[in-house]
Parts: sequence; C-alpha cells; structure tokens
Amino acid sequence: MSDDDYGIREGEATAELPQHFDASLYFIGRIHTPWTRRDDCPKNARESEAVCEIEVDARWLAGLAGLETCSHLLVLYWMDKARRDLVLQVPRHYGEARGTFALRSPARPNPIAVSVVRLLKVDGNKLSVVGLDCLDNTPLLDLKPYFASTDAAPDAVVGWHAKQ
Amino acid sequence: MSDDDYGIREGEATAELPQHFDASLYFIGRIHTPWTRRDDCPKNARESEAVCEIEVDARWLAGLAGLETCSHLLVLYWMDKARRDLVLQVPRHYGEARGTFALRSPARPNPIAVSVVRLLKVDGNKLSVVGLDCLDNTPLLDLKPYFASTDAAPDAVVGWHAKQ
Repeated sequence: MSDDDYGIREGEATAELPQHFDASLYFIGRIHTPWTRRDDCPKNARESEAVCEIEVDARWLAGLAGLETCSHLLVLYWMDKARRDLVLQVPRHYGEARGTFALRSPARPNPIAVSVVRLLKVDGNKLSVVGLDCLDNTPLLDLKPYFASTDAAPDAVVGWHAKQ
Repeated sequence: MSDDDYGIREGEATAELPQHFDASLYFIGRIHTPWTRRDDCPKNARESEAVCEIEVDARWLAGLAGLETCSHLLVLYWMDKARRDLVLQVPRHYGEARGTFALRSPARPNPIAVSVVRLLKVDGNKLSVVGLDCLDNTPLLDLKPYFASTDAAPDAVVGWHAKQ
C-alpha cells in the first residue's frame, strides 16, 4: 500500500466521526509550492529553503495591510487529502502507534495545519515565504502575525520524539 | 457601542463574504477558562498564569496517547462570536487601521485561534494548561505537539507593533 492511499496500518485505530459538522470555512487563497506528490514534500519545513508563494484571493486584499512589517507569519491551511477519523497512528518513520493529537500528521479530525514561515516579500495579493512543506495548490485558511512574546517557546520538548 | 457588539469602527472596512463555504469542522471538545465576558479575558495570554482546562470529547480519547510527554502544545479553537467580513480593523488599544491578517483579532474570515500553552497535566480526557486567553466554553478544534525546531522563532518581529 502506498502512503498516498491514506489507509490504515497495523496498530492504528479510528473513531466514529460525528454525524454533523459544527462550523464551516472559507478557502481564502492557495499556496504554491514545488511539491506535487506527498512523497516529494520535505519531512520537516526547516529542511527546505524553497521559496513558496501564497496567493490571497483578491476579495481579502485589504486584509494584508501592515503584514509587510512582519518578519514571520503563522500560516493556516487545509490538508484536504487526509482522512479525519484516525485517533492512533503509526508514522512511517517511527513505527510506534501514537495519538493523533501527539502528532503533526495531516490525518486528524480537523485537518488544519499551522506553519511558521519567514516572510520575504508582499507584492499585491502574493506573498513570498520560506518554511512551508505542503503540496502545491493547498487551500489557505488564515495568515497571522507571529509574536515571539507569545508564540515562541524555544525550550519546548516533545518527549516521545526526543527519545527516538 | 460596547466592544461586545462586534460592530464596525471608523476606519474599518468589510469584504463581501463568499456565497458558499469550502470545508467544515467538528468541535472536538471545549475549553474551560475563568473568563465569561470578552472584557475579562487577558489582553495577552502570557499576562495570565491562570490554569485552564481543555476537555476533549470522549470519542477522541485515544488520540491523546503520547501527548503527556509534551511540555507545550498548540491549541486551535474556534472564536465563534466574531464577525468574519472585516478586512481593516482598528484595534481599541492602537487606534490605527490595520489589515485583518496583520492582527490576531478574533474577527477574520476563518476565526481559528492558535495559542501556545504549557501542558501541566493530562487526566483522562482533561488537560490542564497555562497560556490561554479565550472565553469559557470556547469550542476546541485541534491539539498539536509544539516542536521548538519548527515552531519557535524567538527573533520574530512584528514591525507595526514594535513601533507602538
């Protein structure tokens, strides 16, 4: 089974999804990256210096005012190809089952990714950034200024990962 | 006009919202905080040492396995009381119009908040954390391990804010 099937591996478990949704999202733009297959994406966004382009729909253009003064942004996007019912997952590179909320896997009840990027340039409705690892044409959900005072926790530890 | 009306101030601007949504969300739990009115919430999550409780719906319990090894988490939640069409906003404490995407205001096309919290304890489906500033009973969308290697940018600058 290829990883792109988003199937279930031994040791993985699913939950029954709720019968209805509770809220809804607008895609506000698209993210353009060099990667068109999941296997091509960098394992870790800091592995790549690739410059990616975030294109915000013209409707929201005024919302970018002031963004150019930010050195870093939080980028929220929608990982629309992943299944949403996995609660235990066996990441290919670790081989041990872990809870979905202890992982950054795209497979989760609400497949919203959060990435920290360096902002290189704002040109109209297009942003050049470094630090993404998603597929080309990924739907954009939000952009936020990154505040070191509240968003940076350089001493944070992920115990299960540190032990690998 | 009270701030709780979520009205429009002079200098603010709206966009016409898209006619349809593109994706949908499940609320996966609730966040319990000491704050029941917007004006009571801390201006900045690091201002408060209040311990808040995140209650994850039983359906997703298995998804928490391994989370207890994390010192910090990203908490994503839904700011369901805010209007979604503001593109220029005049924050009360700054008095100057800025683009929605240059602000952390709850009013945004997709009102998803991202907070970095310190994890104190996991007890079944309940987490004790420090670092939230949201209203009591806020809907939970996601929990993620915080990786300092990709999520911490201690040198990040928000230029418009630094100048205040």
